[in-house]
Amino acid sequence: MTLDDTTMTTFDTLIDRRGTNSSKWDKMERLFGVSPEDGLAMWTADSDYATAPCVIDAIRRAAEHGIFGYSWEHPDYLNAIAWWQENRHGWKIDTDWILTSQGLGNAIALCLQTWTEPGDGVVIFTPVYHEFALKIGKNNRKVVECPLKREGDLYTLDLEDAQSRLTGNEKMILFCSPHNPSGRVWTVDEQRAVAEFAERNDLFLVSDEVHQDLVYTGHKHIPMALAAPETLPRLITLSAASKTFNIAGQRTGNMIIADPELRKTMKKRLAALDYAPAVLSVDMITAAYSPEGAKWVDQQVAHLERNRQIFDAGVNAIPGLRSLPLQSTYLAWVDFSDTGMSHDEVIARIRDDAKIAVSPGPSFGIGGDGFQRFNLATQGARVEDAVERLQRAFADLQ
Amino acid sequence: MTLDDTTMTTFDTLIDRRGTNSSKWDKMERLFGVSPEDGLAMWTADSDYATAPCVIDAIRRAAEHGIFGYSWEHPDYLNAIAWWQENRHGWKIDTDWILTSQGLGNAIALCLQTWTEPGDGVVIFTPVYHEFALKIGKNNRKVVECPLKREGDLYTLDLEDAQSRLTGNEKMILFCSPHNPSGRVWTVDEQRAVAEFAERNDLFLVSDEVHQDLVYTGHKHIPMALAAPETLPRLITLSAASKTFNIAGQRTGNMIIADPELRKTMKKRLAALDYAPAVLSVDMITAAYSPEGAKWVDQQVAHLERNRQIFDAGVNAIPGLRSLPLQSTYLAWVDFSDTGMSHDEVIARIRDDAKIAVSPGPSFGIGGDGFQRFNLATQGARVEDAVERLQRAFADLQ
Ligand SMILES: Cc1ncc(COP(=O)(O)O)c(C=O)c1O
Ligand SMILES: Cc1ncc(COP(=O)(O)O)c(C=O)c1O
Repeated sequence: MTLDDTTMTTFDTLIDRRGTNSSKWDKMERLFGVSPEDGLAMWTADSDYATAPCVIDAIRRAAEHGIFGYSWEHPDYLNAIAWWQENRHGWKIDTDWILTSQGLGNAIALCLQTWTEPGDGVVIFTPVYHEFALKIGKNNRKVVECPLKREGDLYTLDLEDAQSRLTGNEKMILFCSPHNPSGRVWTVDEQRAVAEFAERNDLFLVSDEVHQDLVYTGHKHIPMALAAPETLPRLITLSAASKTFNIAGQRTGNMIIADPELRKTMKKRLAALDYAPAVLSVDMITAAYSPEGAKWVDQQVAHLERNRQIFDAGVNAIPGLRSLPLQSTYLAWVDFSDTGMSHDEVIARIRDDAKIAVSPGPSFGIGGDGFQRFNLATQGARVEDAVERLQRAFADLQ
Repeated sequence: MTLDDTTMTTFDTLIDRRGTNSSKWDKMERLFGVSPEDGLAMWTADSDYATAPCVIDAIRRAAEHGIFGYSWEHPDYLNAIAWWQENRHGWKIDTDWILTSQGLGNAIALCLQTWTEPGDGVVIFTPVYHEFALKIGKNNRKVVECPLKREGDLYTLDLEDAQSRLTGNEKMILFCSPHNPSGRVWTVDEQRAVAEFAERNDLFLVSDEVHQDLVYTGHKHIPMALAAPETLPRLITLSAASKTFNIAGQRTGNMIIADPELRKTMKKRLAALDYAPAVLSVDMITAAYSPEGAKWVDQQVAHLERNRQIFDAGVNAIPGLRSLPLQSTYLAWVDFSDTGMSHDEVIARIRDDAKIAVSPGPSFGIGGDGFQRFNLATQGARVEDAVERLQRAFADLQ
């Protein structure tokens, strides 16, 4: 991978997001008691640097045109998504398979509402993206937490344990691949095991692959549809440009559904709801999923890899703290349990001494106790600052 | 109203929308058999001119910033919507009352899904925006068509006739105010009668006020909430910047709900679905609903008024054709029934001779037979061209 120094620098250009309608910065004080004046926002999963120049150019061109009228069926957009899946992930899809939702939280809700009933159980492998459980609850379904197994630095699936937790009332798995917050990039074998588990228990399998593009050297994301093609009749794959290109605020994501029956059902639901992607989202995503966009993502991953090294080296030098090595995602998962401190004590130091707003581990479900999640999708200088703040806040442990 | 000549001209600048993902232009051949090469697109309700400069500036500023991460709770956006309702329509609302949907087709679907059950009847006053019936059907509810009464050039409500059409199984009215395609701006008395009708029959009242801003001299849109405040406990008002500012492709609209119980129910539904407006829509609408945006709308209305005069004068000079005088909207409603021709004959002449793609009257339900709807939100030159084409196509009637 050759890196262009000019572009590299853009990931390090400090941008002040305060007062720009950024939830991460503007809500940190209210939610976490950390003032944006002198604090660092390292919680919700978006990035502090600008999206790819090709995406910005697409917006500029749209502004130039100036008309934002009705637009439906977007062959360029659909072709770009298919191009990306094939060229970045080796998955050849039909553009027909792509159904657009209002982001992936919305896609998850639509899957729950379409293929489960109130009271049904929905399986998640915890610790996992906290919205899985929240969304299941808001739709009056039952969260079935199946904890991952942690062996040293590595999380693995424990499907035997999971099997023992089922009551027979479960209808769906929400699978996070790659996994937020462990960063695991699941192997083919692991995914095949999940597919078999779904088959054995007759569960719909929603594979949320939103973190597919931010994968580090030595690992490779394999779409569930490729790992376990026999699962297609029960598989809904979610993907989006939102994390990859820092455009989550545009609320646009995709459900890729190969099975014609499943697809027909979801298409009907979307038509009844009158869903269609916003034209600017279409323009942005079409521009993003391109060779130019791909090059920018490679540069971003290199930037994140560097951030991760700075962060892990600094944090792991503090006795009692362990930032687990990430295989993917910009979300560092840090174990504070060896400090022997209570959660409240850890939180108080991070909030009041380090002044960093983080995502608290317990919100990710069983297995989250003792952890905090730090978002590293920011400038290198901010990561270095965070390390110094943590070293100061936990200086007595040195 | 003082008009700025420079801005006036922008409504007349010819913009080629072919090949720009515009449904109106790119789908006209497939849907109506009229080639965009030498045809005119006068069907779906968006405009052929650019949106307001302040909206375009907002997009440019967002592109400059370059970050499109998470953003929720948008006080500026909500304040702008409230400002618009108060300043343009005299309706003082609480920003709490505003719930954002993915456009108004989506808002209608959400209302149907929330307050009616499959099989329930939903009342519409025809001829009316064809998507009302389609959306009711796609959600497996029953369309209850209650025709308007036509007296000369004027459509009025016939609530006695409507009452006789009810079976007791009805749960909701979709009321179009101002009315597409008749252009009627309903009076306070008419709206009070509708509210009483809703009360008497215990129907939820969805007042779709998307056309509220494009009202011609001598008429004034009154929000249902003001005309019949006693209806608030059953009232959901829909409004959007989409028609007014030609940004319908952004799929963003509002449900304004004063009643706390109704609002709570819809809020829960939106939360379960994980809805949030796209950040660029928020920026655009915030910029649109401003004094600058208001001035642009005044200029647009003057432009449309001119288009309407050109069109009506030209069309009404053709014996047997009658373009009804519009009180609002840019959607001319033309009665061809006095030509004595069959619908097929009229359509064939418009398609093959005039080469204009129009919205066929029968799609608007009972009362639509014999009519065609022409979209006048275009350049003056295109309206003149349309008139000449129609005069040629129906030359034998002269
Ligand atoms: C696994 C996972 N799915 C979905 C989302 C959110 O998707 P969206 O913003 O499109 O609702 C996130 C955001 O962090 C995530 O980590
Ligand atoms: C009365 C009415 N409601 C709703 C709409 C469509 O709204 P949206 O584009 O936000 O779905 C239209 C479009 O013509 C309309 O005329």
